[in-house]
Amino acid sequence: MTDITFAVLGTGGIGRRTLEVSQHTDGLVPVAACDRNGIAVDHDGLDVDELLEATEGNIAGDGRGETGSSDAATDGGVAASSGVKQTGDDAGIVASAQGEPTETPIDDVIAESDAIDAVLIALPNLEHDFIPRVADRFVEADYSGVLVDVLKRSRVIGMLDEREEAFEDAGITFVCGAGATPGFLTGTAALAAQSFVEVQEVDIWWGVGLKSGYEDNRGTVREDIAHLDGYDIETARSLSETEIEEIIDEHDGVLEFQDMEHADDVLLERAGVCDADDVTVGGVLDVRSDEKPTTTTVSVTGTTFDGETATNTFQLDDDTSMAANVNGPALGYMKAGVMRHRVGDDGVYGPTELLPRF
Amino acid sequence: MTDITFAVLGTGGIGRRTLEVSQHTDGLVPVAACDRNGIAVDHDGLDVDELLEATEGNIAGDGRGETGSSDAATDGGVAASSGVKQTGDDAGIVASAQGEPTETPIDDVIAESDAIDAVLIALPNLEHDFIPRVADRFVEADYSGVLVDVLKRSRVIGMLDEREEAFEDAGITFVCGAGATPGFLTGTAALAAQSFVEVQEVDIWWGVGLKSGYEDNRGTVREDIAHLDGYDIETARSLSETEIEEIIDEHDGVLEFQDMEHADDVLLERAGVCDADDVTVGGVLDVRSDEKPTTTTVSVTGTTFDGETATNTFQLDDDTSMAANVNGPALGYMKAGVMRHRVGDDGVYGPTELLPRF
Repeated sequence: MTDITFAVLGTGGIGRRTLEVSQHTDGLVPVAACDRNGIAVDHDGLDVDELLEATEGNIAGDGRGETGSSDAATDGGVAASSGVKQTGDDAGIVASAQGEPTETPIDDVIAESDAIDAVLIALPNLEHDFIPRVADRFVEADYSGVLVDVLKRSRVIGMLDEREEAFEDAGITFVCGAGATPGFLTGTAALAAQSFVEVQEVDIWWGVGLKSGYEDNRGTVREDIAHLDGYDIETARSLSETEIEEIIDEHDGVLEFQDMEHADDVLLERAGVCDADDVTVGGVLDVRSDEKPTTTTVSVTGTTFDGETATNTFQLDDDTSMAANVNGPALGYMKAGVMRHRVGDDGVYGPTELLPRF
Repeated sequence: MTDITFAVLGTGGIGRRTLEVSQHTDGLVPVAACDRNGIAVDHDGLDVDELLEATEGNIAGDGRGETGSSDAATDGGVAASSGVKQTGDDAGIVASAQGEPTETPIDDVIAESDAIDAVLIALPNLEHDFIPRVADRFVEADYSGVLVDVLKRSRVIGMLDEREEAFEDAGITFVCGAGATPGFLTGTAALAAQSFVEVQEVDIWWGVGLKSGYEDNRGTVREDIAHLDGYDIETARSLSETEIEEIIDEHDGVLEFQDMEHADDVLLERAGVCDADDVTVGGVLDVRSDEKPTTTTVSVTGTTFDGETATNTFQLDDDTSMAANVNGPALGYMKAGVMRHRVGDDGVYGPTELLPRF
């Protein structure tokens, strides 16, 4: 496979770490990155070390994902949704020698997109139609290539499906839900299901310790709070930072989630593994420790062709961070998406659809 | 995806179970099967129930995989290598109402191959070049489609690679090592590796309880004995059935294997997961119990981008049989191979190369 050039929308925790992880593999060349205030482009490859170093520790966005502001009209909401540097002379990516200020970061990426094979949308998704609307921008600009997101909410998949024809017409391969869960763990569930002719239940249980990554991942934490009893996306988005800290304090820093609306369910159903109703997702987030509060485990229970009921399990070592488990898979699925795109097989794919399956 | 028609070469344990498992999924239509003495063809789909019932319990081949006989010249060795019914009026597949006797089973399958999308080579591989030579027959006949095998030995992959250009010229997508290990477990190892930017070690440890499947899987057991200390492929092939029983008796029915030459190593290296030398395969086979003597476990140890060393693990439930873990994946990889073939992406693929990967 020839080199894959890619851009990252959003330089919060996920965007930054994706740039970093891409340095560890051959054939992936990051050529553009943007945040609220700026864009960095180099078609020969960004200097990732410089970019990360210049902007390190300056992620101060609150992850609230406001897209109702006037910014939304021009940049599709990238501005307010990605944390950016709030201190110093230059904000966010503009602090990098490679960064240029802009009012229209997404438009600026689109303007370069003839030379961009894939775009990772690394933005919090606090409005259901936020990522679909970002995708619309690429459709309108007649972008031909791969879009990858790490979204979590089940209902967003349907919104992308509604756009499938538009993606195909434009020549876009959209890989949705390609992070850890959904994404990595959904893929392992699909593989684990290969022992079975019928799957009764998929149980995904995750643990995340986020002390040192907390500042970088406020958007993700806010999204998770929306899954707690008594909260939804709207109420979580309206919380102030102080209110979020209060919620975290009430739980002594440890938030436990049951029956989350994670897109693993619809993605496994799309792939023919099981019904969405047979998938449960939950987990425990500790924002005051880097130790995982529980071991991430995928359990797939099914019936074999010879009539046995059994449960295959996949476990992530507690020493693998959320970042490690999001970004490796996201880049792997991006590569798989580029392969599909290069043979003209555009449309909407969940990660499990990029796996061989029975 | 439109329906996939497929043929099975060999109706020993793996071939029979593949036909059976294919009944549990949509879109896979078995249209041909052959053994030493006969062939069954129905382009609208074989009556698998009838075929399996008519030949049940009559697998009496010794799995020795003799290919030096005169048969080899005409049928590529399929004859003596697949167990066939030795009792009753009709031998093997000819006992089925769908079976027709033939001296040239592979040629007969090839003659039908215009309407066959994929061929599963479900034959023991007791000569290193046996499966490659079967593939040569398809190349010579200018077959265009997918060949899938469930081979185990690392060195065979190289022999297939030598033929890659010939496969591409003919229009053949060859998926090699697509059973349980290599195959299923190799795939899970590749996925488990996605947490890591560098993989230090992959350890595959399998358990198989084969009491009720022993008669059907003599060829597999003989292949396994070739991995024991003091034996190799040649000596294992020359063993009489009585000698094999003696070896099994000496071990009280439980054979333990260390450092097996299983192609997981080269397949993971091909996929860029790790060096072949970093892969170890071993396991325990109990031919006197259906209970697994040990839990099949894949352990992948690597370093994350943020510098942690960790081990992700995948475990198969003890209640999943070898047959369940071979045949589901084999059909899944066959489907993935057909997708590659349909977009003109021919050549040689290991299962891990059909997965998204970082």
